[in-house]
Amino acid sequence: MKIQHYTQTRPEPVAEGPGITVRWVVGKEDGAPHFAMRVFEVEPGHSTPYHSHAWEHEVFVLTGEGTVRHEVEQETAVSHGSVVFVPGMEPHQFINRGDGILRFICLVPIEG
Amino acid sequence: MKIQHYTQTRPEPVAEGPGITVRWVVGKEDGAPHFAMRVFEVEPGHSTPYHSHAWEHEVFVLTGEGTVRHEVEQETAVSHGSVVFVPGMEPHQFINRGDGILRFICLVPIEG
Repeated sequence: MKIQHYTQTRPEPVAEGPGITVRWVVGKEDGAPHFAMRVFEVEPGHSTPYHSHAWEHEVFVLTGEGTVRHEVEQETAVSHGSVVFVPGMEPHQFINRGDGILRFICLVPIEG
Repeated sequence: MKIQHYTQTRPEPVAEGPGITVRWVVGKEDGAPHFAMRVFEVEPGHSTPYHSHAWEHEVFVLTGEGTVRHEVEQETAVSHGSVVFVPGMEPHQFINRGDGILRFICLVPIEG
């Protein structure tokens, strides 16, 4: 069993954009067989890339004020306690619209 | 895409013990193909059952003060920001040791 505070995992920059870090808090190296847990931090004025991919996301927003862009010109507000399920192949983007860090958990499947 | 506050999902009692509820915030009905997200609330003085099973847990603690019992007589303190990975077949129990609700996210694989 692994028990750690999420801040004990080193934050890594995200290649797709500035102002974003990711912590892989549970992953393959921990023996996780099916899915991985990451914690993202998006700085004010920044956002994750608007993109799509084959795998799904399951997201829980921890802190901050943001929007999820789910189609061109369509955004939905999210904040602490928001849950987002992004099915595979659906375009999505997490945008920080507040003054503080937008911090959220995002889980993805581990490829067999 | 599903975007909701977690409290919009109805809390259900947990059969294994009093003082616990679970919200299935992302699951099979949402089209999730690989894993499900639940939000648990354990009232003060209560705990989840001490048990083990074949599937893993990936946990993020949101609020409250508790311990994770991982072997008989062994407990580790958890609070906001704690991440717990419980591999399949490892005995585990989440115990509320505080005065408020112990609230955590717990993900499990969806059986094919």
